[in-house]
Amino acid sequence: MADVHFDRVALIGIGLIGSSIARDIKALGLANEIVVSTRSPETLKRAEELQLGSHYTTSAAEAVQGADLVIVSVPVGASGTVAEQIAAHLKPGAIVTDVGSTKASVIAQMTPHMPPGVHFIPGHPLAGTEKSGPDAGFTGLFQGRWCIFTPLPDTDGEALSRLKAFWEALGSRVDEMDPEHHDKVLAIVSHLPHIIAYNIVGTADDLETVTESEVIKYSASGFRDFTRLAASDPTMWRDVCLHNKDAILEMLARFSEDLAYLQRAIRWGEGDKLFDLFARTRAVRRSIIEAGQDVDTPDFGRHSLDKKP
Amino acid sequence: MADVHFDRVALIGIGLIGSSIARDIKALGLANEIVVSTRSPETLKRAEELQLGSHYTTSAAEAVQGADLVIVSVPVGASGTVAEQIAAHLKPGAIVTDVGSTKASVIAQMTPHMPPGVHFIPGHPLAGTEKSGPDAGFTGLFQGRWCIFTPLPDTDGEALSRLKAFWEALGSRVDEMDPEHHDKVLAIVSHLPHIIAYNIVGTADDLETVTESEVIKYSASGFRDFTRLAASDPTMWRDVCLHNKDAILEMLARFSEDLAYLQRAIRWGEGDKLFDLFARTRAVRRSIIEAGQDVDTPDFGRHSLDKKP
Repeated sequence: MADVHFDRVALIGIGLIGSSIARDIKALGLANEIVVSTRSPETLKRAEELQLGSHYTTSAAEAVQGADLVIVSVPVGASGTVAEQIAAHLKPGAIVTDVGSTKASVIAQMTPHMPPGVHFIPGHPLAGTEKSGPDAGFTGLFQGRWCIFTPLPDTDGEALSRLKAFWEALGSRVDEMDPEHHDKVLAIVSHLPHIIAYNIVGTADDLETVTESEVIKYSASGFRDFTRLAASDPTMWRDVCLHNKDAILEMLARFSEDLAYLQRAIRWGEGDKLFDLFARTRAVRRSIIEAGQDVDTPDFGRHSLDKKP
Repeated sequence: MADVHFDRVALIGIGLIGSSIARDIKALGLANEIVVSTRSPETLKRAEELQLGSHYTTSAAEAVQGADLVIVSVPVGASGTVAEQIAAHLKPGAIVTDVGSTKASVIAQMTPHMPPGVHFIPGHPLAGTEKSGPDAGFTGLFQGRWCIFTPLPDTDGEALSRLKAFWEALGSRVDEMDPEHHDKVLAIVSHLPHIIAYNIVGTADDLETVTESEVIKYSASGFRDFTRLAASDPTMWRDVCLHNKDAILEMLARFSEDLAYLQRAIRWGEGDKLFDLFARTRAVRRSIIEAGQDVDTPDFGRHSLDKKP
């Protein structure tokens, strides 16, 4: 089995994902030293208060010096800048990976800066919540979640095995895909849902005939399910939209086409068409529960968590 | 305080809502007798096995005889038929109410059949889960949830107070609205979200480039949130679409317009527009949590429920 212990790990970016990685590394003893780096002095201070690492710096270049594993957890639009900053300071033989939600763009941004002898292996842990920042992270975030790698043609097999073993130690299930396919899959399972959620919450917020307080008061009848995704980090999601444009536009076109069909069925009172669609989507939910990808408890199990007035 | 105890309650329809009402009435001792009625012999048999009532019949006409309170919990498209069937058998002075998700249509369907001396008071408890059928109901479903009444101009004040007190005994918070406004509010907080959820799950199910098994496997990255609503009862939702057509079409038009704007911003790389929308929707989520209409636990609190592999 590959060695999952690293002497020094550098975390560039210490938000929800970065700080969860830091917590897991500490809890599992996977590194001797954890260098935490973020551009924002306030966030860095908070990371230090939370004792997420052993060293702290606002300089990514400084952070990566002597690191055996570098994990870049920044909004995907910042990947190129980070790669440029760290390039000259990377230790020969170091593994550099990222956690970005789009892969072709991150590869295009980072690869040109990577010096020979450094193993750049793009990755994407499919984990997170609607919260963001170093306080939002927690131990076990990656437990049972997928981590997809999109290795480059010249990726070193041993380095890849080591990185996979590291993520498995964090509880992840690992998978491999080519970057373009990853971007298409994520466009439908993650990017489109977030965009649609942001959009519907925006639409509701703009109504004149129904007040915002009514929308909030009665949100439990369906709307609230969308507000969770629509509360996700705006910078991260702006960057995802800008950096997976083609796949997202394709999915949006299909979604809108299907919605027009449904809208027409409603206008013309075509109950059979509506029933057929509404009946077949049930099966998808069932498969997701059977695959262990969601809880089977009704209403996401909220009922037991709801505050009784 | 109004008397919340009834001698005989007739439940027409015994799905998720009807069976939850039955369970609460029994648990709280709110009636001497509960007559359970549903068209389907299989469902009736199941209701009897679950001991949801004291009498069981497939005839709605028979069920309402001698009942002081009649609660119609059927898909809204069946409201007229039920009203016609029960009309001649209602006890003078009885309160007849419903739980339908659209109110103008239910009123138009039921009112013409209601005999003088019977109090017809349309109602709508905003409660439920994605499950359906008599097994899906549970005690406490209405706890802390809103129940909206849309009384008619000639509604008897005393009967309304009694019905409100009954729902309050079930834990509901009660509210009043005119039927047209109810239908607009529900179109945005409930009907549009369900339609969008059904649509996106349908779109994902139809892709050729991404397999269904990939959609399911990676659904935790956003998509799964939609599958819950899209697993709701198809008959109920077909009827909602057909019976709140105008308000739904208006909301769909606004949603599509907003989505086209967002799509254009993605195509032209207008990051600021995307950021502005993504940042303001966060505030809506915050308000919903502050209003006690959703749990604040990240990821709907699923993490603690997730099966660890």
